[in-house]
Amino acid sequence: MKVSRRSHVPPFAVMQVLAAANARRAAGNDVLNLCAGEPSTGASDVVRERAAELLRHADLGYTEAMGVPALRAEIAAHYRRWYDVEVDPARVAVTTGSSGGFLLAFLAAFDVGDRVALARPGYPAYKNILSSLGCEVVELDCGPATRYQPTVSQLMEAYYGGGLDGVVVASPANPTGTMITPAELDAIAAWCADHDVRLISDEIYHGISFGDDVQQATAAMYTDRGAVVVNSFSKYWAMTGWRLGWLVLPDELVGPVDALAGNVALSPPALAQHAGIAAFSSAGYAAAAENVARYAASRAALLDRVDELGWRPVAPADGAFYLYGNVARFRDAVGGDSITYCSRLLAEADVAITPGTDFDGVAGGDWVRLSFAAAPDVVARAVDRIVAWHATL
Amino acid sequence: MKVSRRSHVPPFAVMQVLAAANARRAAGNDVLNLCAGEPSTGASDVVRERAAELLRHADLGYTEAMGVPALRAEIAAHYRRWYDVEVDPARVAVTTGSSGGFLLAFLAAFDVGDRVALARPGYPAYKNILSSLGCEVVELDCGPATRYQPTVSQLMEAYYGGGLDGVVVASPANPTGTMITPAELDAIAAWCADHDVRLISDEIYHGISFGDDVQQATAAMYTDRGAVVVNSFSKYWAMTGWRLGWLVLPDELVGPVDALAGNVALSPPALAQHAGIAAFSSAGYAAAAENVARYAASRAALLDRVDELGWRPVAPADGAFYLYGNVARFRDAVGGDSITYCSRLLAEADVAITPGTDFDGVAGGDWVRLSFAAAPDVVARAVDRIVAWHATL
Repeated sequence: MKVSRRSHVPPFAVMQVLAAANARRAAGNDVLNLCAGEPSTGASDVVRERAAELLRHADLGYTEAMGVPALRAEIAAHYRRWYDVEVDPARVAVTTGSSGGFLLAFLAAFDVGDRVALARPGYPAYKNILSSLGCEVVELDCGPATRYQPTVSQLMEAYYGGGLDGVVVASPANPTGTMITPAELDAIAAWCADHDVRLISDEIYHGISFGDDVQQATAAMYTDRGAVVVNSFSKYWAMTGWRLGWLVLPDELVGPVDALAGNVALSPPALAQHAGIAAFSSAGYAAAAENVARYAASRAALLDRVDELGWRPVAPADGAFYLYGNVARFRDAVGGDSITYCSRLLAEADVAITPGTDFDGVAGGDWVRLSFAAAPDVVARAVDRIVAWHATL
Repeated sequence: MKVSRRSHVPPFAVMQVLAAANARRAAGNDVLNLCAGEPSTGASDVVRERAAELLRHADLGYTEAMGVPALRAEIAAHYRRWYDVEVDPARVAVTTGSSGGFLLAFLAAFDVGDRVALARPGYPAYKNILSSLGCEVVELDCGPATRYQPTVSQLMEAYYGGGLDGVVVASPANPTGTMITPAELDAIAAWCADHDVRLISDEIYHGISFGDDVQQATAAMYTDRGAVVVNSFSKYWAMTGWRLGWLVLPDELVGPVDALAGNVALSPPALAQHAGIAAFSSAGYAAAAENVARYAASRAALLDRVDELGWRPVAPADGAFYLYGNVARFRDAVGGDSITYCSRLLAEADVAITPGTDFDGVAGGDWVRLSFAAAPDVVARAVDRIVAWHATL
């Protein structure tokens, strides 16, 4: 029987790497897995303890489609605390992870046939969700020349080239870790508002950034001009499997997102919502900060050894927990592109990393992504192995 | 800035009833709420205890997009246990509630512009999700004349009338509680297979049925002919806020659903998945059976008093926990349709029920839905109040 055309989503190359890694691990090999886009630690004790308490007495039924009011209020307070931006809790929608947030934001903002721009390389699910909803994706070539982030001039080119209804930006970005400066975000938000282009800002790696040179800017400053913020408890608060995220919405999308959420999702997970309130306690922030300090140590050690690794260029890795590096110079030595590089690295040195092809359908064959969310000693041992493996090529 | 056309989802009338009910409760009134489409009990102790244990040591990160293998295996075993049907765990997809399941099934099966039939009255989210995904909804008029369920002849009419790509059936159905007999389901599945029409069977109220006259039939028997089953832990296992459901898929949709799920949802909630395994223990089934016995008592008491209530006709209420009754005879007395009936019933007798307009855009003004998932004494007191209120009209 017929399968929909829109379900023909390209498979992720990393899934093959992971399957091979699991097989090698099952066979007794000591595999170092640096594929994962998630912290290795899990939720903080304060969140777990709150959840355990709730399990004893709370009824954990459906909640409001937009989330429980107490959590929406905490999220709004977080914007005051971190960014000095006033957010009305009525404009906060709690979602089932940022995945649920993207789905609702895209449905509320875009119709079938609408054109939405996004950076290449980028998180592949943006593109795949948009395509499945009937939107047309306009890829912006964001390599080293634009510091891996879209520019206003690229948006203008897309706008005058074939029309543009929206743009998704991510800072810090996956896979590159690069950030958009406050001035750049301001320019993009202004341009979008002037051209009736919906700005959707993925801020799920906020809080995970390194160094003082790039300040964290939130599009929540621009919701009065139509911008939408997508965020999550998965990365900073290490709550991936809890499936909890949020949107900060412009006024005109509050009603539509509420109505869509009530039909498409009913409500986000109740236990995660109630327990997630504890993420905003001082103990919750402290646990997250400890994780970030660990990523910072891993990152510093990794960047110290980039020359040894021979990945050139590497993206700046201002934030998130990824090092995106160019391995084109190894093409001849490994006999293929980054997929070959990754599969041989796993087979010959038991290190699993992600081929860039998952993030970039054009240049991704030259790139790989290494996640340094793993424990620092795992990252250090992985670099040792990669360097030693290069010497054998 | 532009809001999508597809986000113009009609609001649920029940939301106004609930807001008014909450306001009256906050003002100190003793409001009896029979609107809810959920059990009042919450998850069983065995599930809660398993969850509390997992919170102490499990990492609760992302799981496989299709769900953890142990839960998929338990779900498959459930089909052997309940229906004597063999289901390969590879064809089970764990989803974020049945909402997440419907979204994935619709995306995998239908493209923009595809035509999908469903019963009117029916659960409004089917229609709203399908519309938001660009599908065209074909409503089948399923009143008392077809025992509130679609027939093969209605499908034929839709098929020859304008083409048909799919049909959603629900048994037991919301709001009517009526069930499709095994023979009817067999006929519908055969007709769908012969005409390349995708059958999607909502079985989320399975296990909640009354009397031996209508046997529970699952479309899992027909996956080899393209049928898709949607089910959930929300109703029988009373785990609404946990957001856990599943699909049983035909072979050709396994890959598409896996790929879509990895992009649209990443993974269902991890804690709910691991704890949900305990729902299939004997203690898990026993707790669910206790709930069903309570609904059965409420239902029997309610049906005994239908003459007194004066709702005629009422749908058979074979299963689920709803009584769907016709209140057309009260139009003159209340001075309006079922929305007026419900708002006056709340304002004058503090009983909240749902206007039929949420389930039926044509005849719903004549109908109301009462949920008897509440505690039996609440249901009994509500009937007392409705009868007394009728006497004042």
